[in-house]
Amino acid sequence: MKTIKKVLIANRGEIALRIMRTAKEMGIKTVAIYSEADRNALHVRYADEAVCVGPPPSGQSYLLGNKIIDICKRLNVDAIHPGYGFLSENADFCRNVREAGIIFIGPSPESIELMGDKLSSKHTVARYNIPMVPGTSDAVTDRKDAKIKSREIGYPVLIKASAGGGGKGMRVVENEEEFDEQMDRAVSEAIASFGNGSVFIEKYITSPKHIEIQVLGDQHGNIVHLFERECSVQRRHQKVVEEAPSAVLTPEIREAMGKCAVEVAKACNYYGAGTVEFIVDEDLKFYFLEMNTRLQVEHPVTEQITGIDLVKEMIRIAEGQVLSFSQSDLQIQGHSIEIRVCAEDPENNFLPDVGTLQTYIRPQGNGVRVDDCMEPGMTMPIYYDPMIAKLITYGKTREEAIAKMIRAIDEYQITGIQTTLQFCKFVMQHEAFISGKFDTRFISLYFSPEVLSPQPNDQEELLAAALAGMLIKDKKPVVHSDTSLSSNGGKSKWRNRIER
Amino acid sequence: MKTIKKVLIANRGEIALRIMRTAKEMGIKTVAIYSEADRNALHVRYADEAVCVGPPPSGQSYLLGNKIIDICKRLNVDAIHPGYGFLSENADFCRNVREAGIIFIGPSPESIELMGDKLSSKHTVARYNIPMVPGTSDAVTDRKDAKIKSREIGYPVLIKASAGGGGKGMRVVENEEEFDEQMDRAVSEAIASFGNGSVFIEKYITSPKHIEIQVLGDQHGNIVHLFERECSVQRRHQKVVEEAPSAVLTPEIREAMGKCAVEVAKACNYYGAGTVEFIVDEDLKFYFLEMNTRLQVEHPVTEQITGIDLVKEMIRIAEGQVLSFSQSDLQIQGHSIEIRVCAEDPENNFLPDVGTLQTYIRPQGNGVRVDDCMEPGMTMPIYYDPMIAKLITYGKTREEAIAKMIRAIDEYQITGIQTTLQFCKFVMQHEAFISGKFDTRFISLYFSPEVLSPQPNDQEELLAAALAGMLIKDKKPVVHSDTSLSSNGGKSKWRNRIER
Repeated sequence: MKTIKKVLIANRGEIALRIMRTAKEMGIKTVAIYSEADRNALHVRYADEAVCVGPPPSGQSYLLGNKIIDICKRLNVDAIHPGYGFLSENADFCRNVREAGIIFIGPSPESIELMGDKLSSKHTVARYNIPMVPGTSDAVTDRKDAKIKSREIGYPVLIKASAGGGGKGMRVVENEEEFDEQMDRAVSEAIASFGNGSVFIEKYITSPKHIEIQVLGDQHGNIVHLFERECSVQRRHQKVVEEAPSAVLTPEIREAMGKCAVEVAKACNYYGAGTVEFIVDEDLKFYFLEMNTRLQVEHPVTEQITGIDLVKEMIRIAEGQVLSFSQSDLQIQGHSIEIRVCAEDPENNFLPDVGTLQTYIRPQGNGVRVDDCMEPGMTMPIYYDPMIAKLITYGKTREEAIAKMIRAIDEYQITGIQTTLQFCKFVMQHEAFISGKFDTRFISLYFSPEVLSPQPNDQEELLAAALAGMLIKDKKPVVHSDTSLSSNGGKSKWRNRIER
Repeated sequence: MKTIKKVLIANRGEIALRIMRTAKEMGIKTVAIYSEADRNALHVRYADEAVCVGPPPSGQSYLLGNKIIDICKRLNVDAIHPGYGFLSENADFCRNVREAGIIFIGPSPESIELMGDKLSSKHTVARYNIPMVPGTSDAVTDRKDAKIKSREIGYPVLIKASAGGGGKGMRVVENEEEFDEQMDRAVSEAIASFGNGSVFIEKYITSPKHIEIQVLGDQHGNIVHLFERECSVQRRHQKVVEEAPSAVLTPEIREAMGKCAVEVAKACNYYGAGTVEFIVDEDLKFYFLEMNTRLQVEHPVTEQITGIDLVKEMIRIAEGQVLSFSQSDLQIQGHSIEIRVCAEDPENNFLPDVGTLQTYIRPQGNGVRVDDCMEPGMTMPIYYDPMIAKLITYGKTREEAIAKMIRAIDEYQITGIQTTLQFCKFVMQHEAFISGKFDTRFISLYFSPEVLSPQPNDQEELLAAALAGMLIKDKKPVVHSDTSLSSNGGKSKWRNRIER
């Protein structure tokens, strides 16, 4: 067991700052790395020491594993926290770090390798009782075989070209009557596109939810789960809104998924923080999707409902400490939601926006957490992810967490850059989201740029305000001047006006 | 039962903003009042409507109860939240509000009156089994009687002039041997000062802790307590640091104090949020001190450990709703600490400082909450309490909450005004605070301005940094320029320098 006294954070942005905060709370010195584009970034100023690793893009700086290892040696760094993205799931980097005598705050390179590939991960967990989307394990070419398999699996099924990609040779079959026709089309598309007519058949999940389980394991074989995160609101497979717990899971299914995630982690001798992702169907049947062998962007919602600081636990585990709690010590308290505030224009197909934060005022108060790396006047670098901030709220109930999120979005003041704030407010106010009855199709089903135009209610209010002579811009309050109240014989002398 | 649709907050500063945030989350429209000195205050801009009530000082503005009631009538306000201070414990105002058909978000005027006076509150609770500091209920003049009483009470005792005040005619008697001498001195001092030699005798609490219990009651007779807040770190009877739960209470004593607080609340037919204050001695015996019939400054620490939004509950109770939880639904989760960040100079006898916030950057991140009403460039008005912000941290354990507080204090950037931040950091790092073994004498026992000078550890670090050629000002990080790492044959070419 080795105490970590100095940690290098091989990352940038909000996650670098977030990790440094916990390190400071633990009395651990911090080293930042940065690209030339991040010279003025907050994570650089927040660290005890900072080293420039090269110019953007990341291939010439944040991804230079060996250079980062050299820096660690020179600065007597005990450990590297990779954050998410960049080198966080790079088994070679992890191995090189360890061989240099530096602690990698994360799992072993073997776990990363095993889980890094969809096929090898499915193969790894196959020996265990892990539910996977039902389907053929080998390619089929014979129509009759395929039909028998499809009946076994149960309709609707998905026919996928085994050499496929990009939706080519992919067909949804609703029932046996249309099987032959769709199979023929899939096969001929597959031959035309890939020169190979063999296909896989798997269960088609009509209404898929993306729900993941957070796990934590130490280096002594203890593994627990920290319940689920519901991440179904996605745009182009990118999570947009995450929450914990899920609005729809029953305690029984939660427990079953948690146990299953722990099994997956055990199957690859996992330690550190990891996430086991599942697809969940309308009947709440769940199927293993993949495992992410790192800290997730959305980890704060789990911290809010469990009270566990995941980064602190990762560091303790990396030091070789035994988990300080067992499964029975953990319970869900309250509800937490996270939105990703991105520099994107929802009214213009979410085109990334670059520019300078003219105004940047964060929401504050009870149950509001902002994880970011921004300040007024800062320019968004074009080289990196356009996420400005993660806005997290926490309430006693889901209803309260939603109400706090809407309040916090209204309070957030960002000018100079288009953001997804109003888009996220739309999600919070949408009936499907409020009811919990939504799946990964949420945005394609319900969102169009028009929904961000003024709503009927707002219009009514604006009209009413205009009629009352109180029309105000920029949501400033109606400010009444009231110096002569007592002398006007009951007739109002309000002069409604804006004083700023 | 009446639904509140519009609320006027008869207050200013952080508490006005804090109340408005909850109102917004509940979909309730907000009306701010402000004095001419607060024209540019954030609470004015945050509200849906705002009315100027007059010039400073408060006697000509925030304390004009009838004017505030008139404003409510004109703006169709359903309810008034008084916050703390100002009109919050004014029974006449409460009565007038109700008579005007407006809901007062707080207790009945009768409860305020009963508990507003120390003597009447002790008289009110006397019929119940509420422990009070043992002492004579009537004044004594006879030395022999007094000695008998003192023996009953148990030494040390305090002799207090019944007409007293300001410490005059007050004597601590350690044991019976010195009783006669001290009694004579007390009586002659009392005669000299007040022309009246009669005295009270009560138990002298050597090491007093100030611990209070939060209660919530609805208008249907349901009353619960929300555990304790430890508020012993005080300066001139002003709380400086508060936390929940207390580091020293046992579950049994916590329960006994909670039950006792509920009894006190029942004794005055209490509804709304209230606080029952106790003195607790070294043996954890507790004695009723007084009841505050309003929201306390330090209420956030209770919100953090219970998940209950106290302002939300106050509003629900005022609407006539039944408490949505019972005592058994409540439990303590984690630990929370609050510090009051004041515009005072701890190195200059805590002289209030006025001026402009040149820099104002709040700490952020996991487990940090800032309740304030400030922004960069704002000038502290001289007319009001010099509190800039309440900084609240929350962690799984007390140790974690302290670590987060120190991190958050280090992260807080305020220039242009002297603050108590470093003083509060001193408290967090003091052995007596860390151990929990402190009482209301903490500051007088341990604090002197010199303790805020650089500590030995800091000095060592500065020296080491200087020797390494890395001396930096303003806590900026050591920034290494690293463009030629691979070409220097193992000899370091770091040019340690500040790039900003």
